[in-house]
Amino acid sequence: MSSEMLSKLTIEEESIVHPGERVDDLECNGFRIIQNPSFFCFGMDAILLSDFAYSGDRDKYCGEKWDQEEKDKGPKIYKKQVCDFCTGTGILPMLLLAKGKAGNVTGLEIQEPVAEMAGRSVKLNHVEDRCQIFGGEKGDIRKIRSNFRPEIFHAVTCNPPYIQDAGGLTNPSDTLNISRHEVEMELEDVIAGAQYLLKQGGSLTMVHKPFRLSDIISLMKKYHLEPKRMRMVQPSEGKEPNMVLIEAVKGGKSYLKVLPSLNVYDKDGNYTKEVLKIYGML
Amino acid sequence: MSSEMLSKLTIEEESIVHPGERVDDLECNGFRIIQNPSFFCFGMDAILLSDFAYSGDRDKYCGEKWDQEEKDKGPKIYKKQVCDFCTGTGILPMLLLAKGKAGNVTGLEIQEPVAEMAGRSVKLNHVEDRCQIFGGEKGDIRKIRSNFRPEIFHAVTCNPPYIQDAGGLTNPSDTLNISRHEVEMELEDVIAGAQYLLKQGGSLTMVHKPFRLSDIISLMKKYHLEPKRMRMVQPSEGKEPNMVLIEAVKGGKSYLKVLPSLNVYDKDGNYTKEVLKIYGML
Repeated sequence: MSSEMLSKLTIEEESIVHPGERVDDLECNGFRIIQNPSFFCFGMDAILLSDFAYSGDRDKYCGEKWDQEEKDKGPKIYKKQVCDFCTGTGILPMLLLAKGKAGNVTGLEIQEPVAEMAGRSVKLNHVEDRCQIFGGEKGDIRKIRSNFRPEIFHAVTCNPPYIQDAGGLTNPSDTLNISRHEVEMELEDVIAGAQYLLKQGGSLTMVHKPFRLSDIISLMKKYHLEPKRMRMVQPSEGKEPNMVLIEAVKGGKSYLKVLPSLNVYDKDGNYTKEVLKIYGML
Repeated sequence: MSSEMLSKLTIEEESIVHPGERVDDLECNGFRIIQNPSFFCFGMDAILLSDFAYSGDRDKYCGEKWDQEEKDKGPKIYKKQVCDFCTGTGILPMLLLAKGKAGNVTGLEIQEPVAEMAGRSVKLNHVEDRCQIFGGEKGDIRKIRSNFRPEIFHAVTCNPPYIQDAGGLTNPSDTLNISRHEVEMELEDVIAGAQYLLKQGGSLTMVHKPFRLSDIISLMKKYHLEPKRMRMVQPSEGKEPNMVLIEAVKGGKSYLKVLPSLNVYDKDGNYTKEVLKIYGML
């Protein structure tokens, strides 16, 4: 991913990007993202999540089959309605649209200024008709029941704040703090919210820290979201995993497919072939 | 592990081994095991389980600290009281005693003839004072509450029958069938039984098929056995895991340590160094 200087933007685009922000090329069908380095910039977890999300056998995992629009319209577009929780910069919606993995994406982000910036990425990519970002009260996972009708999405994605409780780890920047810690939102809110929004047969896909796996699995079960696919991500072979990708299906039967662990780096410290493939570099 | 011919046994030992059975050397402090190839012979899962069982930081995971007897008495002996469910040939009790990982092991096996054979392995190894095998009604996990007092063990191990339901997979040999399928016993019986027998802070360690992981974790949570350590076992790098090792602690706090995936074979089809180490060959 390369960062663009403001000078590379058109005059119209310049008005979309604010001072202090940068624009990164997602190197996928021309999509770009606005980020503010003083907030929080997306990482490998977002890339891996966008790749892993509902990439299993769709007919098996989903209640309905999504049609593919005519191929000559560009990238494959499935008519999938997706909701991304804790969307931050809007990286997940942009990646899912760039990859043609969603027909429409709704991004929820509780922090108003972050949601506002994500909304400008939507504009920059000219996908206003296929992506909505809701911020503040409307972006609050805990208020989903007041803001949305039930069972309207085929898929929910979530790259949630990671730390179980802020403890001594609070960060001087409040915005960064809310993004990274579970200050404003509990894991159970995410899973209960997904359960409410998903159609029967729809999927919740998350990336999280492995140490929370047992909580994630037991909460998913509690809300009848059955874990169906899981993958550990290790920095390299023989290293403890530092991420877990997990997907649950609403009303699915009990059977978890555990994929081979994904190693990020090989022995020589280079990205493994599989990671390069996920990044679209192979 | 090498199989011994009857001719290698003493006359006294010969009377312990029945026709059709074989004796395998566990290559660990002289311990041997009697097996009947027409029943079920132990596999790598038993070796890995005996290695993985309560091998984390003991002070952290256990309610009490187990003293080590004087080193000059031979292998390290912890005064740990262990119960092995579905003990089969008694391989887990023999391995735990051979490795000095237990002070005393009780093996439960519902199949009377298999339990009887395991009892003869106890005799063959002269560990009658440190190992008891219960068969039939007394070896039935579902009847633990009638047969044992609660909270008397520091650890429970279990290498349970693997298949969720027999379905079309029934085997002509009934003995093999009961060992390999969950015909006589449900996963919940194992976990509820362990919860009953374990002291506060004691551990349940299991080896199982990864596809049942979400059931295992949610049942452990249901019975207040908190999953604390987990390890996937892959045939080789990039292959889907075919075993999972998991340990829960009674009354533990929610935090799962996920260890690096264990690869059994390297690229050239040889055992990896770590597996050789577990087998005591490195």
